[in-house]
Amino acid sequence: MISAVILGAGNVATHLYKAFEITDKVSVVQWYNRELSKVINFKNDVDVTDDVSKLKPADIYIISVTDDAIANLSRQLPFKNRLVVHTSGTVNIHDLDKKNRRGVFYPLQTLSKSVLIDFKTVPVCLETLEKEDYKLLKKIGNAISNHVKKVNSDQRAALHLGAVFVNNFTNQLYRLAHEITESTGAEFDMLKPLILETAHKVQEHSPFRSQTGPALRGDTSTIKAHLKLLQNQRHKAIYEMLTQSIINTHGS
Amino acid sequence: MISAVILGAGNVATHLYKAFEITDKVSVVQWYNRELSKVINFKNDVDVTDDVSKLKPADIYIISVTDDAIANLSRQLPFKNRLVVHTSGTVNIHDLDKKNRRGVFYPLQTLSKSVLIDFKTVPVCLETLEKEDYKLLKKIGNAISNHVKKVNSDQRAALHLGAVFVNNFTNQLYRLAHEITESTGAEFDMLKPLILETAHKVQEHSPFRSQTGPALRGDTSTIKAHLKLLQNQRHKAIYEMLTQSIINTHGS
Repeated sequence: MISAVILGAGNVATHLYKAFEITDKVSVVQWYNRELSKVINFKNDVDVTDDVSKLKPADIYIISVTDDAIANLSRQLPFKNRLVVHTSGTVNIHDLDKKNRRGVFYPLQTLSKSVLIDFKTVPVCLETLEKEDYKLLKKIGNAISNHVKKVNSDQRAALHLGAVFVNNFTNQLYRLAHEITESTGAEFDMLKPLILETAHKVQEHSPFRSQTGPALRGDTSTIKAHLKLLQNQRHKAIYEMLTQSIINTHGS
Repeated sequence: MISAVILGAGNVATHLYKAFEITDKVSVVQWYNRELSKVINFKNDVDVTDDVSKLKPADIYIISVTDDAIANLSRQLPFKNRLVVHTSGTVNIHDLDKKNRRGVFYPLQTLSKSVLIDFKTVPVCLETLEKEDYKLLKKIGNAISNHVKKVNSDQRAALHLGAVFVNNFTNQLYRLAHEITESTGAEFDMLKPLILETAHKVQEHSPFRSQTGPALRGDTSTIKAHLKLLQNQRHKAIYEMLTQSIINTHGS
């Protein structure tokens, strides 16, 4: 059984704790958080602490705190030569204090505390500096996810950036569609099956092959009608820019 | 049993034909297309024709051709006072020739011939000029879909425009993420669970409440890092515009 200590109590830390709870391959021996109140509810199931000097021995220490706080917390650890990983999409592996063996365990998914998720479906990006550490990290990853990949820091940064496009920006397009439809009394709900189908289609076909619509067809009369309909200048600018982007990708 | 004639053989026409095939409430008595070759494969199941003068009597004629061709085909129909509807998201109901009773039957989904779809899940937007016609149209809609709604022309135009945002533009964001990840050798596939989760989340929560990420958090250091990473100026401009859009929606 691999022993782990989790440091931090945010969304990722909480989902990791729950994922480790249901595997018999990893045991969380301690949960550290700067504010004890955030982990105190779990004290019957796991040792909790807010004191880095009381950290227990373990095979791996998983730092899952805000990006800005990772380097500092790694420096505060009162031991050396142990495996310490962070869970961030953007922080470099070398930002961890070099007194310990370093790694990254980055789950590529939007994780809210209130939303249950099957961690088996979450891709996990792994990186270590030492081969031996990678073996251990891979065992931990495979214990909770079916999609574990070796990903270097450049690739991880690109995936994190891609995630902003397919998650944050896509969600903002949903928001704009919400504003556009509700301004006429139409129901945004009517777009929900289309939202799902769009996401499902790209699971099987490339986004290039999946594209449809007026920009792809060069249907300028529909594009003109849409631009006329858009009263909000910011919506209009986004429509124009993404229409042009589709034309750039597919030719006009 | 309601009798229907379908005019056109594009994606929507084909999906409608298949949906009507599996209900006992509507019978397609004839399938018209300008080019007979496109419907000839169905001649053992339904009467096919390329001659408007040979159209059979029916309770409803469903014109499912390109937007530009709808008005003209409606003028060519050699009868009057029958119910004639089109299936377009953008064409006005009054563009149909007024010699017949007019309506709209607009399925709000991305329909490709090669992709099977459960029509029961497709929202259908209905519009008629006469109350009696609405009753019939609603019966037809309910026979094949669980999501039938009365939608006026302004609302339908807004839904069609919203569909471009949540379908075409969202798919283009997937494409950009594809370009960004593959440029580093990272796998776009690793973003697919996130794409699905993003679409699923908005089924239950509003896009406003679903938003996360650096723009929402005002995390300027991550935004700066992302902009530095984006070599392609067009990608950069889209990143900046959608980041600003999120800030406009949620405050900075």
